[in-house]
Amino acid sequence: MRWQVHSEKSVYLDPWLDVRIADVELPDGRHIDHRLIRTAPGAGAVVTDADDRVLLIWRHRFITDSWGWEIPLGQVDDGEPPIAAAAREVEEETGWRPGPLRPLLAVQPGNGFSDGLNHVYRADSAVHVGPPAHPWEAERVEWVPFATVRKLVATGDIVCGTSISALLHTLVESLPEAVPPQGPELSFLYDYDPGRVYPLPGNLPDLL
Amino acid sequence: MRWQVHSEKSVYLDPWLDVRIADVELPDGRHIDHRLIRTAPGAGAVVTDADDRVLLIWRHRFITDSWGWEIPLGQVDDGEPPIAAAAREVEEETGWRPGPLRPLLAVQPGNGFSDGLNHVYRADSAVHVGPPAHPWEAERVEWVPFATVRKLVATGDIVCGTSISALLHTLVESLPEAVPPQGPELSFLYDYDPGRVYPLPGNLPDLL
Repeated sequence: MRWQVHSEKSVYLDPWLDVRIADVELPDGRHIDHRLIRTAPGAGAVVTDADDRVLLIWRHRFITDSWGWEIPLGQVDDGEPPIAAAAREVEEETGWRPGPLRPLLAVQPGNGFSDGLNHVYRADSAVHVGPPAHPWEAERVEWVPFATVRKLVATGDIVCGTSISALLHTLVESLPEAVPPQGPELSFLYDYDPGRVYPLPGNLPDLL
Repeated sequence: MRWQVHSEKSVYLDPWLDVRIADVELPDGRHIDHRLIRTAPGAGAVVTDADDRVLLIWRHRFITDSWGWEIPLGQVDDGEPPIAAAAREVEEETGWRPGPLRPLLAVQPGNGFSDGLNHVYRADSAVHVGPPAHPWEAERVEWVPFATVRKLVATGDIVCGTSISALLHTLVESLPEAVPPQGPELSFLYDYDPGRVYPLPGNLPDLL
């Protein structure tokens, strides 16, 4: 079921963020004042080499005060194709120009409160063109053995959601086909009952 | 290298979002006005059963106008332990009470602009306690064969970053140990050069 949006108004606006309150009607007719943030899409890439290594940056994030390995990723400029933005961001942040890019996946980092959408591409080669143009983003740029990625996720050394999604999807893509599911496909299913009235916890939307 | 934060001021504040501008000093001494959003942490769970199925909800997100399978996930209440929030959210959104939970991973959904942190747990059983208390969140609640998860990610039917991260991590955890990396561990590494001046693209922080 869809929530009906009757109106949206900006409560804070700058060139990076448009914070809004939406008048949202739930299926049972009740209204909530839902917060949302509109922001530019992002683009980045999983770049690997012939030795099964992946190009990552090690950086500190001041907002979360945490360190982690990340794929190169940045904002798509106005009018820029996401694939071009991905190539540009890889080169700016790492100093390596990726080979041909193909779409890998799209990730909504926080679809409960933001319309952010990260387009992630895949390249299996790169050439070194010089030092990073945006070196303040990365403490280190490194070719990391792909076989260590699952351990780096497990230990919390990769914590950025889009990086985890993109790297683990790349890993899983390389595996043999999954075994077809056994047994019954569905054991239990709820469908929303439009005739029932469900209690709402006040007028508080959950942003997740 | 760390960015030095000299000050933060709220530019928009409500019970869900604290939008701020931070005066951030880059390693070369230049300042940028960086935007950031402080918000509550989230908690959720990957719940599986003995038939290798996973408990997912199928929902529409009005902010992105898109449908997708997601793990149950919601905001942690003030003072609530994240593991208790995860159990509560699973039950509210699905009508199933999860068995014992263990930590799976923590995900920062958008660490370039938000301090959001999602704590994800894992349970390998659940008991049915009734219809969902928050049925307006899900169009359908379903036990989905785990073997189809990789395909659902590949087709874009799972697009929520935290759900992709948590589900693929669960899948990868079940695989045999990775082959230890071959060849040289590192082929190339930049370290930030504090003596060099790198051009900044105006006073524009990139929020990714």
